[in-house]
Amino acid sequence: MEVVEVLHMNGGNGDSSYANNSLVQQKVILMTKPITEQAMIDLYSSLFPETLCIADLGCSLGANTFLVVSQLVKIVEKERKKHGFKSPEFYFHFNDLPGNDFNTLFQSLGAFQEDLRKHIGESFGPCFFSGVPGSFYTRLFPSKSLHFVYSSYSLMWLSQVPNGIENNKGNIYMARTSPLSVIKAYYKQYEIDFSNFLKYRSEELMKGGKMVLTLLGRESEDPTSKECCYIWELLAMALNKLVEEGLIKEEKVDAFNIPQYTPSPAEVKYIVEKEGSFTINRLETSRVHWNASNNEKNGGYNVSRCMRAVAEPLLVSHFDKELMDLVFHKYEEIISDCMSKEKTEFINVIVSLTKIN
Amino acid sequence: MEVVEVLHMNGGNGDSSYANNSLVQQKVILMTKPITEQAMIDLYSSLFPETLCIADLGCSLGANTFLVVSQLVKIVEKERKKHGFKSPEFYFHFNDLPGNDFNTLFQSLGAFQEDLRKHIGESFGPCFFSGVPGSFYTRLFPSKSLHFVYSSYSLMWLSQVPNGIENNKGNIYMARTSPLSVIKAYYKQYEIDFSNFLKYRSEELMKGGKMVLTLLGRESEDPTSKECCYIWELLAMALNKLVEEGLIKEEKVDAFNIPQYTPSPAEVKYIVEKEGSFTINRLETSRVHWNASNNEKNGGYNVSRCMRAVAEPLLVSHFDKELMDLVFHKYEEIISDCMSKEKTEFINVIVSLTKIN
Repeated sequence: MEVVEVLHMNGGNGDSSYANNSLVQQKVILMTKPITEQAMIDLYSSLFPETLCIADLGCSLGANTFLVVSQLVKIVEKERKKHGFKSPEFYFHFNDLPGNDFNTLFQSLGAFQEDLRKHIGESFGPCFFSGVPGSFYTRLFPSKSLHFVYSSYSLMWLSQVPNGIENNKGNIYMARTSPLSVIKAYYKQYEIDFSNFLKYRSEELMKGGKMVLTLLGRESEDPTSKECCYIWELLAMALNKLVEEGLIKEEKVDAFNIPQYTPSPAEVKYIVEKEGSFTINRLETSRVHWNASNNEKNGGYNVSRCMRAVAEPLLVSHFDKELMDLVFHKYEEIISDCMSKEKTEFINVIVSLTKIN
Repeated sequence: MEVVEVLHMNGGNGDSSYANNSLVQQKVILMTKPITEQAMIDLYSSLFPETLCIADLGCSLGANTFLVVSQLVKIVEKERKKHGFKSPEFYFHFNDLPGNDFNTLFQSLGAFQEDLRKHIGESFGPCFFSGVPGSFYTRLFPSKSLHFVYSSYSLMWLSQVPNGIENNKGNIYMARTSPLSVIKAYYKQYEIDFSNFLKYRSEELMKGGKMVLTLLGRESEDPTSKECCYIWELLAMALNKLVEEGLIKEEKVDAFNIPQYTPSPAEVKYIVEKEGSFTINRLETSRVHWNASNNEKNGGYNVSRCMRAVAEPLLVSHFDKELMDLVFHKYEEIISDCMSKEKTEFINVIVSLTKIN
């Protein structure tokens, strides 16, 4: 499985689409706003760029992609008015893997811009938009071409399934029953990937450039902690039920592993300092309930749909597409049951960085 | 009909796709190479940019889009080696209307880059790519952000069907039987559009920036000349045959007009000089046979397929989608017949420009 080729959120605007099942991600963008705001204000009022170049890495598509844009435009508009300056030109780069549905994103840009003008008037911008397909674990932009890098709920994805974890049997992610070698392999891949990410971004950012990165993580120092692994453990349970029912071969599940790592703040800090291109302005965690909807009744349904929008293309690359309805139905049942018994939250790790030199 | 919303080449990689039916356009890119080359060499060896920012406006998708990229990279590589410089970073912007199939374009980028490295080695670039959705009759890029603008077989498309041509009955483009007011309205729209194009590009180009623009045009000063109007006249004939057969209502054809204008070099010169932002380095015409394939036998088939890849989305926005096979079958018959009797060529107008100041 080539992660670059198969990882993407479900496209389009349909029932299983990411665009219609990404309330958790929306909530997280809103929760992180104070940190984004501080970083952008600091950046703007130290550089006053004529053209403000911003990249959203792992932008996906839908309302969340545009929420980030409008948040950033509003922050800058407020700040530049304070200084009595005219609005900068905004240059937004939407990055995601080539499998992302850029067509749908591009075709909804017109309506979004109209909407934005309705909300904040005509005096900002102009705004320019580009789509940049590719892995953020490679170079994506010319040297010193960006002021601000934003990424929300993307950087926990690894560039590949870690090598040497064939012995992670019965699991699809790190779990309490995973051999220690599996845990180490996961961390090693994360350290390589995140270090590369920092190195490449430091080449692309201008002097004084900033990044605000939010990712799924954990507070505990135990990488197999329930707070980060449980959601995948439940998916493994759903898959294993289909194994019991003879619908999936056991070896198939044994050979499947999620290319993700949910780091602790200490791990993030360690890698940033070791890599050396950035200083940390803020490093925080927050929590968000698995079910971001106000409708508590359909919790299991909402969570499984959200996870489906995120993970289905990965699963389809390995398992029979025909089984997906069944897998996610089982998953929903399991999630519902567990949500009725315990507190289920995702942990977000948020880090705000400034490029050194 | 909103041209911005409906005009795009047929997407994907299928039988009717633009990607598989654009040999004429390929031939024209190859024919224009000496002019592109001269402009790029002049640009590179006067600015020696560290990052070379290039936009292909109306890029569409498929082999032609990549042919332009590899042509430009090769030209610069040859030149920079002459000067003993290291390769610049290349920053390619692919622009087209939001209906263009950017997903297919983005998903074929990886293979293209591998191919390019195989052909010219590893020493160039790196190359960065972005997709920019939007009409080139609006601003698309930040101020002074581009070195080189390239556009092939796109600028004859107008931003809209000219106003006030309801009386162009029985025709779908300018024709000998069109009222003079129709011809004037077409030219007026072209002058507005091309002037806007020049104004916006002059804002986006850096000092010394250049453009090489190739478009369908004519040599004659008569805008209804056969050399530019015949291909659409034959499509009108096909549509009118379906009117005769009762499959399309006459009013439907009366109300349909192609949003295109095929200018003479003199008209291009007049508008460039009137707008005032650019000097003309070269202004030439060339000819290319309707059937660019080496296979002369299936001329009518090839030409109608090529025209279908270009015009089908426009037609579908106005006529019944179900009729398209029939329309293009008739069109093929008519084209075949006419190709057997006369010389059928497109006229290309090529202009190479440098931004003043």
